[in-house]
Order: sequence, then C-alpha cells, then structure tokens
Amino acid sequence: MNLNRKDLEPFFTPKSIAVIGASRSPGKIGHEILRNIKLSGYKGEVYPINPNAKEILGFESYKSLDDLETGSVDLAIIVIPATAVENVVQECVRKKVPAAIIISSGFSEIGNKGLEEKIASVARRGGTRIVGPNTFGIFYAKSKMNATFGPNYVLSGKTAFITQSGALGLALMDWTTEEKYGVSSIVSIGNKSDVDDADLVDFFADDNGTSSVLIYMEGLKNGRRFYEASSRAVKKKPIVIIKSGSSKRGAQAASSHTGSIAGEDIIYSTAFKQAGAMRAETMTQAFDWIQAINENPVPLGENIVIVTNGGGIGVLATDKCEQLGLKLIEIPDSLKEQIRPLIPGFGSVRNPVDMTANADDEIYSKVVTALFNGDDVHGIIALFCQTADIDPILVAHSLLSSKNQYGNTRPITAAFIGGRQAQAAYSRMIERKFAAYPTAERAVDGMYALITRYRQLQREYGK
Amino acid sequence: MNLNRKDLEPFFTPKSIAVIGASRSPGKIGHEILRNIKLSGYKGEVYPINPNAKEILGFESYKSLDDLETGSVDLAIIVIPATAVENVVQECVRKKVPAAIIISSGFSEIGNKGLEEKIASVARRGGTRIVGPNTFGIFYAKSKMNATFGPNYVLSGKTAFITQSGALGLALMDWTTEEKYGVSSIVSIGNKSDVDDADLVDFFADDNGTSSVLIYMEGLKNGRRFYEASSRAVKKKPIVIIKSGSSKRGAQAASSHTGSIAGEDIIYSTAFKQAGAMRAETMTQAFDWIQAINENPVPLGENIVIVTNGGGIGVLATDKCEQLGLKLIEIPDSLKEQIRPLIPGFGSVRNPVDMTANADDEIYSKVVTALFNGDDVHGIIALFCQTADIDPILVAHSLLSSKNQYGNTRPITAAFIGGRQAQAAYSRMIERKFAAYPTAERAVDGMYALITRYRQLQREYGK
Repeated sequence: MNLNRKDLEPFFTPKSIAVIGASRSPGKIGHEILRNIKLSGYKGEVYPINPNAKEILGFESYKSLDDLETGSVDLAIIVIPATAVENVVQECVRKKVPAAIIISSGFSEIGNKGLEEKIASVARRGGTRIVGPNTFGIFYAKSKMNATFGPNYVLSGKTAFITQSGALGLALMDWTTEEKYGVSSIVSIGNKSDVDDADLVDFFADDNGTSSVLIYMEGLKNGRRFYEASSRAVKKKPIVIIKSGSSKRGAQAASSHTGSIAGEDIIYSTAFKQAGAMRAETMTQAFDWIQAINENPVPLGENIVIVTNGGGIGVLATDKCEQLGLKLIEIPDSLKEQIRPLIPGFGSVRNPVDMTANADDEIYSKVVTALFNGDDVHGIIALFCQTADIDPILVAHSLLSSKNQYGNTRPITAAFIGGRQAQAAYSRMIERKFAAYPTAERAVDGMYALITRYRQLQREYGK
Repeated sequence: MNLNRKDLEPFFTPKSIAVIGASRSPGKIGHEILRNIKLSGYKGEVYPINPNAKEILGFESYKSLDDLETGSVDLAIIVIPATAVENVVQECVRKKVPAAIIISSGFSEIGNKGLEEKIASVARRGGTRIVGPNTFGIFYAKSKMNATFGPNYVLSGKTAFITQSGALGLALMDWTTEEKYGVSSIVSIGNKSDVDDADLVDFFADDNGTSSVLIYMEGLKNGRRFYEASSRAVKKKPIVIIKSGSSKRGAQAASSHTGSIAGEDIIYSTAFKQAGAMRAETMTQAFDWIQAINENPVPLGENIVIVTNGGGIGVLATDKCEQLGLKLIEIPDSLKEQIRPLIPGFGSVRNPVDMTANADDEIYSKVVTALFNGDDVHGIIALFCQTADIDPILVAHSLLSSKNQYGNTRPITAAFIGGRQAQAAYSRMIERKFAAYPTAERAVDGMYALITRYRQLQREYGK
C-alpha cells in the first residue's frame, strides 16, 4: 500500500546531511539553512560543501561531495545556481545519496522546464529522490531538523504542513509558532519534479508524530495518484486542503507562478470530496478545522448542543450550524429537568442553552457535566461573551477541566468574545490544547470539521 | 425627511442625566452606570435618584424625580425592578423628561409583553421617548458620555454600533477597544418598545461624528420603516448589518431571546439589498467591511490591482476577488513597462503583480506609485508574506505613506501574513487608520466593501 514511505525516510530522518553550497556569509541561503540545522538540535552528521572553506559554523567543510565516502550522505541539500545543479545531482547519484532537496530556483517556475525534467530524470534513473526544485526546505520535528531557510524556531505539534508556495509557507511557519499551532513537519514541495503531494500523503499517513495533514496546493500533475494516496490516508488521519487557483484568473496566475497546471477546479473539488479530504475555503478555515481535529476526539455521533451566556451569540451560532448542516438536537425532557435548576429562571433550557449573563465558571461546569452525563449529547459548542462580573479565565479553566473529564470521547469547541480578558482566556486555552476561537462562527466551524470526520469514518467503517 | 433626529438628541447630547436606581454598592448596575458616566468625562449635570442616599460617587443624590425641577432632566436612566418602572415613567412624563433609557429587564424578553406595551404607551402619550427596556445603555463619544454598565473605557472612532443583543454588545465594546476599532456611539437597543433601528439610522445618518453604521439585529417589528430609513441613510453613509436568526432554529432561539419576530430571512436579505445596506455573514466580516470603509475613500471606479511579494497568496487573493465579483484589470502595456524595471526579472507584471520575495519597502512604494500615477487603477490590494530579509514594519510604513499620498481618492487595503513581526506591522497600520488584515482573503473582502459602496453611490448619483 505504501510503496514510498521507505524512499522518503532520508528526507525526514537522515543520519547525515550535506549542504551543497553552504556559505560563510550570514544572510545567504546556504548559510541560513546550515545555521537552522545547527540551531534546531539535529543530531546526525552535517557536511557543509564549499570549495573555498575549511569550516563553516563549526562544521568541517568539504570541497565537493566527492570528498565524502560513498553512502555516507543520506540527504543532500542543494543551494547553488540552477545551471550547476545537474552536475551536483549526478554526483549525488554517484555517491548513492538517496534524497536531495533542491532549494535552487530558476526552473519550470520561470519556464525552464527542460532543465528541470533533465535533472529529475538523471535522479530517477540513479535512485536519488528529489524534493523541489524551488523550495525552502523541510522541517521535521521528531528529528529536530530544521533544514529550511525560514524561521529558526518552529513550534512542534501534530500537523504535517505541505506547501506549494514558498513565500506563503515561510510566512505561515512564523505564524504557526506565534499562534501556538504546532507542526510535526513542514515540507516546501516546490516544483514537484519528483516527490509530490501523493508521496508525502503516503508518508505522513504512517508517520507516528503526525495526526493531521494540511496541504496548500496550486495544482497537481497526477491527480489520480493523489486521489488514491489521499483515499488511503484519510482512513488513518484527516487531510485538509487549501487549493488555490479556483478562479479563472487565479488559475492563470498559479500557472505563471509555479508552472503547474491548475486544471478545472470542479474536478479537484469532486476528487477531494470522494477521497474524503476536506477542502477549506480560506487559510483561517483550514487552521480552524485542523485545530478542532487535533485537540479533540472524533465524536461518537452527530448530536450537538450549544451552551452560551449570551442569547444573541447563541442565535448566530445556531444560524451557522444550520448553514453547515450540523444537528442541534432537541434536548430530552429529562435532561432539561437536570439543567433547569442550574441556570437562572429567565434562561433557556432549549438548544442553544442560554445560561444568561450570570453564568460563571461553576454554571458552565455543571451544565456541561449534565449534558455529557449520558449518551444523548456527542459534542458541545461553548460560547462566552465577556461581561463585567465574570472572569473569562475562570470560565476557560472550567472548560479545560470539562475537557479533561470528557475529552477522550466528547469534543468541545469554544468561543471567547470580548476584549483583553477574553483574549487572554482564549490564548490560555489554545496553549493548553483546547480548540478555542475568537468568534462563535469559528467555534461552530471547528465542530463542523469534527462532524465531517465522524461522517468520513462512518462511511469507511460504520455499518 | 428626518423627523426623528430632534427627538433623539437628548439620548446622545443631554444637558443633564438622572440615574433612577443609582446605588452606592459597587458591582450593582445602578452603581456601575453612574460610575461610567462620571469616569467618561461627561460635562452635564448628573442626578442620582435613590430614596436612601444623600450623595453617591460625589454627586448630590435625590429621593425621587419629583425633587427635581420640571424640565431639568434631559435623560432619565432607569435601573429599578420591572414592576416599579411604570410609575417612574409616569414621573418622567410629569417632569417633562424627553428621553429615558430603561435598563431594567423582565419584559417582553421573558414573555411579559403587556407590561412593556403599557409603559411604552404611557411614554408615547406623555412625550417621553424610550430606549429599551432590557438594554445596557448608550455610549456617545462626542458627549464623552458612557451611560452603560459595560467597560469604562471605549475607544472613540467613526462607527455607530447598534446592538439588539446585550451580552454580545458588551463583549464587543471590550473587543473594539482592544482591537483598535473605534466607535462614535454604541446603542444597546434592547426590546425596542419605542426607539428602534429605523429611528437610530435616521439619527446617525445626520450625525457628524459618525461615518458608518453597524447593526446587530435579530428582528424588526416594522420592516417598512427600517427599509425607508436605511434607503435614505445609505445616500450619506454606509450601513452594515449582521442579521441573526437566518436559520429556522436560529429564528426560534431569537424569538425566545428578545421576544422579537425573526420573520422570513429572505425578506430581510432582499429588503437590505434594495435599501443599499450591506448584510455581513459573520461578525468578522462586518468589522472588516467597516474598517475598510472607515479608513478609505469611496473609489472612483472598479479597477483593482493586487500587488504581492508571494505568488501563492496572490493566487488566493485572485480567487477571492473573482468569487466576490471584483474586477482585476489587465494592466495596460505602458504601465507594465513602468513596473517591469522596478521588480526582479522572475516576477510578474500581470495582475496580480508578483514583486517576488525580494520586494522591500522601496519596491512596494515604487510599484504602488507607478500604479496610481495615472487614472487606470482605482484601488490596490497589497499583500505581504513575512520573509527572513524584509522588515514588515518598513513595508507597513511604505504603505502608510502611499496612503498619505493617494488616500484621498484611491483606497488601499493590505494583508500582512506571518508571525510576531508581521503582526506588529499589521497592528501598527490599524493604529494609524489603515485597513490592514491578517489574511489575504480579508483584505480582498475589505476592498469588496469599498467597491460595493462605489456601486451603491453610482446607482444613486451616477450619470
């Protein structure tokens, strides 16, 4: 089933890395990558290759790959002008280097397809797998390997992020760390002359440290392979895709940008859907989905309840649920009787449960406990509007302990709406691995991702 | 045309305020409102009314309204139990108080419609206008009047925010300040027993300090009046509406929440559209639109250009433009010739203009100048992905000075994608009144609001 996994291992868990085009000059890409490899704590051997250096950043430097023993390099990172790349790839083949990342640009993305294909074919015949060209590299948390020229520090987490866009990928590397989303890996896939999305999906499907896969895609060369790989992978973990080029002009721009054929957007949509991959409309939505999925179990059913301290926000969330096809259940009478004494008389025990602005951490806790204390409710969307009296941090902690109690089988997403205090509560929750959001709609969208995942798995494994 | 404006003045620019039910106990609503009025710097007379106090928060206190001279109170704020409100409203009528805000709850929102209608009718016959009941009050920046029990500090700005939901409104009061969105006014409109959205839209249409109106609405009692008022108002300033209860269950929840009839959602949508008001789907979208509108001129035409330092993000923005019906022009050849020498050879001078990851503040400035140096381009969407080399703050300042130069007639929206540095740049821009966003799609959505406004005004005033 997974023919490629072994091939790709050297990209992620290499015993040794050669950086061809390593530089002593800070700011140069050949310096920054070496520096990131050093600073990230990578434990294998590192060989800078530079004809004019004896040592770079404390590593002994070599004039060429030929100065190293055959078989001693697992991963070559190539950072030299496009015209010199072919020779180096031939060296890689000669030296039995199984994996090479070609950082260099100047290939199909500027119309230089012939050279790119020639290099890919040399590598293919010689047994060297290629990521790139035109990439910013690979980060892989488990190996403590940051073989990119992006930010030095990346927060470790559960999602493998594959990006066809360099600039966007680099910006998002920074962003994930700042926003406390962690990643298990980032792969800048570049022009995909050899390794493509399908290979990586196969690899990450079996990767222990990865529990979800996020792909930014502009186009595919081999749609069928991707469809097959993702159909297999979604049985094990969810795949979220941002596919750009959905518009006519966007497709043109994508084509001039990475030289990939954007194709008919509807074909992509249909294929993703049939494969069970989730297509996000925006970057925000993709990350919201991933966050909900990473921090929650797949629910045991589709019965959702909204709990809120504000009627208006409850209505907005209800609208969004209906729009997304989420099932807000009628709360059974017996459960209503349990909830009624917990909330003020002018609240509502219907769904959404309006606990009123008097709802403090204790009321949130008791109502969530009542709802989950039985088999009727499979997931809760908890909403909190900042009020003068109630400390959002306490409500956050109440929800965190509900999650500790029920979080193995019952998902919860939450929204905290308000100013500084609400935002502090929301950040605290994200740090503590709770799928929290700054608006009600986004908390609903998070739950939608979980319900979608439930439906996928039902389709695969359910009666 | 504007029959109500004069009636409503005392709610916003009262010469004197009586707080009926003022309390000496911190935490009580009757205390918090008085405290906010004091702290906000309101310059008029303030009369706490409390049968058992001589002085509250430094203001001389009175036993009842009857202890004050007839005509001496412009605005009464009523914070007493529902059952006692009718008597006090009768006092207001007797004392010729032109405006009263009934903070108290316990009326139609809990099914107590009869009492609410009775009070409204007493007031109507007696010439006292009512906001509420079941509201958190009114903030009005020009009078330095924070007559709410919400946050003490509110950032002043250009948007009047009318909210039917109390909890959501209070949370957003905090949020607007934290996010540096300013407001000219916040009106918690409550159960709308008298003053409703139509009255307020009429008022704010002529209010100098207000340049846009944002409404959170669950339902209307008199759709026709609102349609007429908003049709008049949009000729002067834009109206953005978040209308909840679009779903069946949401409409039910709205009905139990504020006792208002949500009605058929499609009727609302159609009426808003015909009136020229913009209906936002989410809170985020509403504020994004408002921000773009407040910080930019209405464009002189529909010709939009995207400039970007990342191809991928340019494609995503292009998709969004096409989805929203924005017109990305073909850049004229003469203009292409001007731009070509400003950007690296592997960039693109088509629309989106891909300035490549090498684009620094100078390149952004030169390309924007070239694009605006003629009449072909009416608006620019500028995108920036954080890179290792370029300081986002410098790019932010470059865009700020482009805005200084062209911002009287040409709108610019921007997105800064990335980690800490990008987010700092983005915050700086918002502080400096630039419509900046954290994702490309939102920057496009901001421009969409401006183009929509252009089309509205074309329809009203165009050739």
